Amino acid sequence: MSDFTPTERTQVKRLPKRGKYERETVFAILDAGFVCHVGFIVDGQPYVIPTNYGRSGDTVYLHGSAASRMLRTLSEGVPMSVTVTHVDGLVLARSVFEHAVNYRSAMIFGTPRLVTDRDEKLAGLRSLTEHIAPGQWDYARRPNKKELAKTSLLALSLDEASVKIRTGPPDDGDSPDAALEVWAGVLPLAAAWQAPDPDPVLPAGIPLPPHIAALAGRPASIPRT
Amino acid sequence: MSDFTPTERTQVKRLPKRGKYERETVFAILDAGFVCHVGFIVDGQPYVIPTNYGRSGDTVYLHGSAASRMLRTLSEGVPMSVTVTHVDGLVLARSVFEHAVNYRSAMIFGTPRLVTDRDEKLAGLRSLTEHIAPGQWDYARRPNKKELAKTSLLALSLDEASVKIRTGPPDDGDSPDAALEVWAGVLPLAAAWQAPDPDPVLPAGIPLPPHIAALAGRPASIPRT
Repeated sequence: MSDFTPTERTQVKRLPKRGKYERETVFAILDAGFVCHVGFIVDGQPYVIPTNYGRSGDTVYLHGSAASRMLRTLSEGVPMSVTVTHVDGLVLARSVFEHAVNYRSAMIFGTPRLVTDRDEKLAGLRSLTEHIAPGQWDYARRPNKKELAKTSLLALSLDEASVKIRTGPPDDGDSPDAALEVWAGVLPLAAAWQAPDPDPVLPAGIPLPPHIAALAGRPASIPRT
Repeated sequence: MSDFTPTERTQVKRLPKRGKYERETVFAILDAGFVCHVGFIVDGQPYVIPTNYGRSGDTVYLHGSAASRMLRTLSEGVPMSVTVTHVDGLVLARSVFEHAVNYRSAMIFGTPRLVTDRDEKLAGLRSLTEHIAPGQWDYARRPNKKELAKTSLLALSLDEASVKIRTGPPDDGDSPDAALEVWAGVLPLAAAWQAPDPDPVLPAGIPLPPHIAALAGRPASIPRT
């Protein structure tokens, strides 16, 4: 696999030290999450909508109701972007100006393709389900013909992407501000899966499957490839 | 205060039961987070960038380097959107088709205004800082003239907004699928501030201030108004 080739719009114009184009880094950021923010344009207005995604190799899959505005718009072959962001902590500096956020973010650009082949559609929906909860595709009832018809699947190639990452302590530790009597450091932020909450109408005797039990208490931001 | 008035583009076209337009709900979603995804257009391409925000009454404030592409683009008075999303859990249904995410999301639409008045600029930057870490504006060194000149502040009016919220168990508890031997319920997701990590070069004897110590261990997604 080759690295992502930076193009004009994925060149990070500012803070070049935070710009990375390596394919593996983009994959790692995508695989660590399951909610992205999709950007698209309707009548000159930018929309930003949260939704789920999956990844299979060099392709990101998005799905939704075939009747939704987002899916109808994007099925027409228009430019879009997909951004995945993990917030890792607050960077508390001596000065307000140097305050920052530690984060990992990937932005993918491209024109999506509506998936019409039944086998690819099933494989794409599988990647979406397994991306969120590995094991669930084999455990839950799979989509039937009617449900497949109601669902649109979009494929976006990972050809063009940019990454921004910030890690580490504040930047003003070697500045004149370091002499101030001001605490400086990072306040980390972490997300974790909590104890499963059964559906109130779930019949007694249906056990929690091991692949879901295994998630509880674990960090939510772990690679799931 | 009046409720947000739904306009054509903030009408949630699908899933109307998840659409709410109440001003207080938008405020609560904004106040529970500190990272938004900003949507804007450059040469017909939608961009989606994570950044911080603050709120003061009916105005959302965004800031950044005056030299950044996002700030330069948005300072020209073009349409944008600001989306804030909190992911609260995975909804594990009997069928793959009914899987969902519990979440709260607000999307604001509008054309931002570049803040040039010095007093409003300081007040806006204060709202940004206090939104993330209440108490920090009075504790850290405030921006000087040079830093203020390097920083652009945008104001976006909360006139036009939409909200989507999903809560509760899966929707297939009263469907034929409820007879399947499949566990169903919600796997909640929660974020929390972790123990503060001091800057390695922080001199000994500078204590952690109480307003930061108070955050550690607390949920990250709490109202901070």
